[in-house]
Formats: sequence, C-alpha cells, structure tokens
Amino acid sequence: MSQSSIPELNPPARILLGPGPSNVSPRVLRAMTAPLLGYLDPDFLEIMNGVADMLREVFGTQSGFTLPISGTGSAGMEAGIANLLEPDDVMVVAANGFFGDRMAEMGTRQGATVIKINTEWGKVVDVDQVRQELKRHTKVKVLSVVHAETSTGVLQPLEELSQLARDYDALFLVDAVTSMGANPIDMDRNGIDFCYAASQKCLGAPPGLAPVGISNKALNAIENRKSPPRTWYLDIGLLRSYWNEGTRVYHHTAPVTMIYALREALRTLLEEGLTNSYDRHALNGRALRAGLEALGLQTLVPEPHCTYQLTSVQIPDGIDDAAIRNVLLREYNMEIGGGLGVFKGNVWRIGLMGESSKSSNVLLLLSILEKELPKAGFEVAVGSGVAAASKILSN
Amino acid sequence: MSQSSIPELNPPARILLGPGPSNVSPRVLRAMTAPLLGYLDPDFLEIMNGVADMLREVFGTQSGFTLPISGTGSAGMEAGIANLLEPDDVMVVAANGFFGDRMAEMGTRQGATVIKINTEWGKVVDVDQVRQELKRHTKVKVLSVVHAETSTGVLQPLEELSQLARDYDALFLVDAVTSMGANPIDMDRNGIDFCYAASQKCLGAPPGLAPVGISNKALNAIENRKSPPRTWYLDIGLLRSYWNEGTRVYHHTAPVTMIYALREALRTLLEEGLTNSYDRHALNGRALRAGLEALGLQTLVPEPHCTYQLTSVQIPDGIDDAAIRNVLLREYNMEIGGGLGVFKGNVWRIGLMGESSKSSNVLLLLSILEKELPKAGFEVAVGSGVAAASKILSN
Repeated sequence: MSQSSIPELNPPARILLGPGPSNVSPRVLRAMTAPLLGYLDPDFLEIMNGVADMLREVFGTQSGFTLPISGTGSAGMEAGIANLLEPDDVMVVAANGFFGDRMAEMGTRQGATVIKINTEWGKVVDVDQVRQELKRHTKVKVLSVVHAETSTGVLQPLEELSQLARDYDALFLVDAVTSMGANPIDMDRNGIDFCYAASQKCLGAPPGLAPVGISNKALNAIENRKSPPRTWYLDIGLLRSYWNEGTRVYHHTAPVTMIYALREALRTLLEEGLTNSYDRHALNGRALRAGLEALGLQTLVPEPHCTYQLTSVQIPDGIDDAAIRNVLLREYNMEIGGGLGVFKGNVWRIGLMGESSKSSNVLLLLSILEKELPKAGFEVAVGSGVAAASKILSN
Repeated sequence: MSQSSIPELNPPARILLGPGPSNVSPRVLRAMTAPLLGYLDPDFLEIMNGVADMLREVFGTQSGFTLPISGTGSAGMEAGIANLLEPDDVMVVAANGFFGDRMAEMGTRQGATVIKINTEWGKVVDVDQVRQELKRHTKVKVLSVVHAETSTGVLQPLEELSQLARDYDALFLVDAVTSMGANPIDMDRNGIDFCYAASQKCLGAPPGLAPVGISNKALNAIENRKSPPRTWYLDIGLLRSYWNEGTRVYHHTAPVTMIYALREALRTLLEEGLTNSYDRHALNGRALRAGLEALGLQTLVPEPHCTYQLTSVQIPDGIDDAAIRNVLLREYNMEIGGGLGVFKGNVWRIGLMGESSKSSNVLLLLSILEKELPKAGFEVAVGSGVAAASKILSN
C-alpha cells in the first residue's frame, strides 16, 4: 500500500432517504470548518452551555441534565443501560423491533436480568402485557421502550408506559434516536428518566453524537449505585463532572468539531421551530405514503402508529430488493434503506429525516419509482403517485 | 431559553499548543464538508478500505486488523481493555502517569484483577519490576503500557516490555494516543497485540475517533472469550463484522464525516512521509526545549526519554499558572496545557503535535514567554530563547 493509491476524497452527492444518516445542510457542514478550541477553553465551555440549553428545549425538560455523548446513537443506548442498571437488577424491555432487541442484549451484558416482551414487528407494544410483567417482579429497575423503531417505522405512544413506570417505581428509558426532531419528546411531561437520540437523523447533523437527557430521579439512581458502571467511557457521573458548569473536570477530549455541527443543527431546528419541524416531517411523510399507496405499494404500519419520518413499505412479489436500490443509487444518486432483521429483503425503509425531509425528495422518489418499477415487472399507473403526493403537499 | 440567545458560531482562531486537540489543516477541515454517504454505500465502503489500509501503514502492521473506533482516545483504551480482559483475568499495568492509572481503573470495571506498577511520574517504567510482577502470577492475560504519557511527556521504550509480554505469553496492550504520527509504532516488530491512538494529536484530525490496530493473536483471544465483552458499543467482534470487507454487517451508523477527516489527515501524513513527520516533531520539540532551557525554565523529562511532541516544563516558583495561561489565551490566542493529576499547578504541558508542530509556533511561543515571564516576576535574558531555538531549527 502506498498513499498514492488513495485518491482525493470525492464522494458523490447522494440524496439520503435511508434510515440515516440523512443529508446535512451546507450551514451545518460549514460550522465544522470553524477553528478548533481546547476542551477547557472558556469559549468552548460557552459553546457547551449553549448546546446543553438547546438540548433541554428539544428534549422538553426544564430540570433534566443534557449532554451529547461522544459516540453514535448506540453509545447513547449503552450509556443509558450501563448507568441505570447494576448486576442482578431487573429490566423490562418492551420490544417491537431490532433496536428493542439491542437494548435487551446490552442489558444482559451489564449483568442485569432482562425480561424482553416480544411484540410483533410493525405493531405498537401491548401495554397490558407490560403491566403483567411489571406485576410479576418484586422490583423492576428499568422499563425501556423505543419511541420510533427505525427497523419498522412504528411510533410508540409513551403516556401509558410512562404511567406504568411511575406506578411500579421503575426508571423509564426511552430511545428517541429516530423521533427527536420529528416528534415531541416531552421528557418532563412523559416522565422519561433517560432519553437518548442521535445527531444524524431528524436533527440534521452528521452521525457521531448521541444527545442524552437525564431526569433528576435517574441522576439520583446513578449517584446511589452500589458499584461504578462497567463502562468508564460512558460513565454519566464522570461525564457530568465535565459538562456541569460548576465543576468542569476533564474526562475525555470532547469531539469539538462534531459539537460545532450539533450546535448549528440545533440552532437551525429551533429557528424553524420545533412544532414546524414536526409538522414538516408529518406532511412530507403523509405525502410519501399517499404516493406509494397510489402506486399500489403497501405500507407496513397503518396510521396513527406509523412514523412519518421513516416509512416502511413492502417490496412487491417478484421485485428484486437489491436491484432496485442499486438503480436508485447508481442512476439517481438516491439511497433508500433495505430491511433489517426479519424484514431483510422484504421491506424498504424510506427516510424523510431532517434536511432530507422535503417535498422535492418526495416527488423525485415517486417519479423515479413510477419510471423504474414497471421496468422491473411491477405495473403502476404513471403519474398517480406524484399526483397523490402533490394533493397532500398542496393542502 | 430561546434560540435567539445562542449566537452564530464564531470561535477564535487559537494556536493550539496544549495536550490536544491540536490545530487541523484547512485541507482536513474542508474534507468534512463533503456530502455524506450511507454506512453501507459502496462508495463509503471503499473509503473505509482506504482508511484501514492507511492505518495499517501508520501502525506498522502487515497482518493486523485496523479500524477507527467511533469515540475518542479513551474509547480506544476501553475497547482494548474490555475486549482483551474477562472477569478474573489478570492485567499488569506498567503505569507512570495519569493515563496508566486510567487503564487500571478501566480494567477493574471489567472485573479483572489489576496489578498496577507505580513508577514515579516523569520516569520510564522499570522493566525489572514488571518482570517480577509477571513472574509472581500463574497467568497474566494482558500487560499494558502507555507509549507516550500525555500527563508527563515520557516516551516509553517498548522493546523490552514487548519481549517480556512474549516470554510470559501475555497480550501486549499499548496506548499510542500521543505517539502515533510523531513516533514509530512498529506494531509487528514491537509485538504489540492491541494498540489504540486518537485522531486529534499528531495525526492532525479533529477529536472523535480512536484508530486501533489488533494483532491476530489478540483477535484469536477475543474470538475465544468465554463470555461476550461487557461493552456492546466497543465490541471488537461486532465492529470487525462491519469493517471486514467480506462481511459488512451493520453494527452502528459510522461517523461518516469524522472518517472523511481522518482519511484526509492520514493522506496528508503519508504524503509527508512517516519518517519526515517523526523528524519534524523531533526537530521542533528539540528547538522548543533548547529555547525553554535557555530562558532558565526546567524541562521535566530529560532526553532521550522525553516526547518531543509534548514538553513538560516546571512552572517557576512564584509564577501563577492560570494567570500566564490566561494571558497567552486572551492576548495571543494561544493555548498551552496545564498539569494533570499530581502535576496540577506545577507543570505546563506544551504540545507541538500534528499541524501545530511547526517552527513558527516554537518561535512565537518563546518570544511571548520572553515578553511575559519578566512581567510576572521571572527574569529572562530577552532573545536567548528564540536564539537557542533558531540555532537548532537552522541546522
């Protein structure tokens, strides 16, 4: 190997309509070219404060502690599970997809007793089943659920589960990786104790950071652990000493440039307004669904439980998953997602997240499908998808 | 809080001469504005291959497995410790500073039996002491050491320790966070089994990635674990399934933009040539040492055991650590590092790493010290520091 074999970086400009990363605005990309600061530079500490403040607003918490974990969404998941659980603690995972399964796997690695409630993929969690499971145990430490399951496109209502967590004095752990920026999180109102998200989906920054919000109840539980968490890198107590304005104790070198990007993405989101962003994601998602259905494709999750930022659609019989996605990528520079886990080969996952959630992407994808699906042997009424979407977008 | 209170991002252009992050070249910053790709996009997989290839060259390994961990240097440290060690395994940490202590702490959190050999800060590790410790135990699983201690500026010779690890059939774990890019790592020749570094020091990228190199012996040990590692996010077996060209199984969304930055930084480094980079770091570091000593300041670690990319210097009696660093920051936009741990308040740590390692930074810092130290009560012969440094730089 010699460096001459590594050409200049020149990635194609893809339209990213997969499960993330989504496209990033020029404004956010530009923020990353700002000069770096040291991790204890007073000007950087000010930037950290701004990020934590904006995160509080997006998480919907007045008193909760917020920070971006220096890793991707899965690092946020592990931070939650590894800090809330000690060996032999009981965690009930209300799982209805790939990422619920991941939570359970992580809980096991912490030495916890994990009870996974398996809901069929594509359905919302059955609250009665969760209640029965909570009843069966003397003490459940954590009840966890995925708000928006990226593997299926199900949006899980949180109110009843939150009430259950309170009733049984369990900490309520919520995965908001795909919901944050597209759905209200309302951490305080929903009684969420630990919530984690990811920078690269509906927040509009590149992947690499996992914003987390932690309630005072969860902070107390972490402070009162019998033993330190098994992870040092994701130890919330130590991270808090660095992110807390009053202490600022060095833990690890903050990923300065990624924090610049997240800051600019959050500024963009709050300038648009949270409600406007939720509405935009819903409108474009509804238009896409209408268009896909007009083409005769079947969406996997019916309203009102579908996520509009991620639409799962069944691949028609006889259509080659990889072949179509390859055409989209190679001929149109457009990425859509394949299925994950049990949906591999049967489902496409179409993301309209963050900067990628715009009407032009909806119309372009539908018109490409109108052109390409018939070639692959699936007949559609040309124009019907775009017409159905346009009708919704014009309302 | 409203977003209007968060002003536009506008960090000052600091000269970063602390323990990292160091300055990042415009070329690397610009790479981060490239369009994002999905984590399974064929064009991105090609980029990953290039990064892994270049890392093999910088780690000095033909057959080792290389990848950048999606976290900072400390995530690389935890990846090594959590994957190599199982509960009740024995780890011997040859510690001579802050980061050796951190290794020991992480080992304990994995349930391992940790034996920490405490060498005085600022000294190299006593190999005989390590040998005695290895002899005392039936089976030591891991022997670990820090190549370049960022808390002190000691460069640890690796040959003898490596031989000891081989003799006692222990895996040899090396922290190359501050050495990679400034000192040869020679993973294969030095018999290193797990080596981790960081993007933001002598490699010239922003903080956020931890390149790791793993020998086949270590990969075998990881494959043959009795139980999975306690960390899921840093599980090398799972990460390998994604980074391995033959498998490409999704683990977590790769931090695409940071990988662009690392790629461009590695290209820059290999264009300069590894040996030239090592020489540049040594030359500028020698010039700085000569200048500081000419001013009557005392460097902490004598040659040949000092790192040239990080010079520790004792703060003269009566000089206020924070006041001087504040003057540098506020009046000259220059950061130097304070002391860590037992050196807090007594030591400055001056980094000349990556893009920050250049003669103009040496000369500027020395001329600032010549101007400012007398004001703070420490007399110096004005011009002597710059003259001593210039002499070395001109040779």
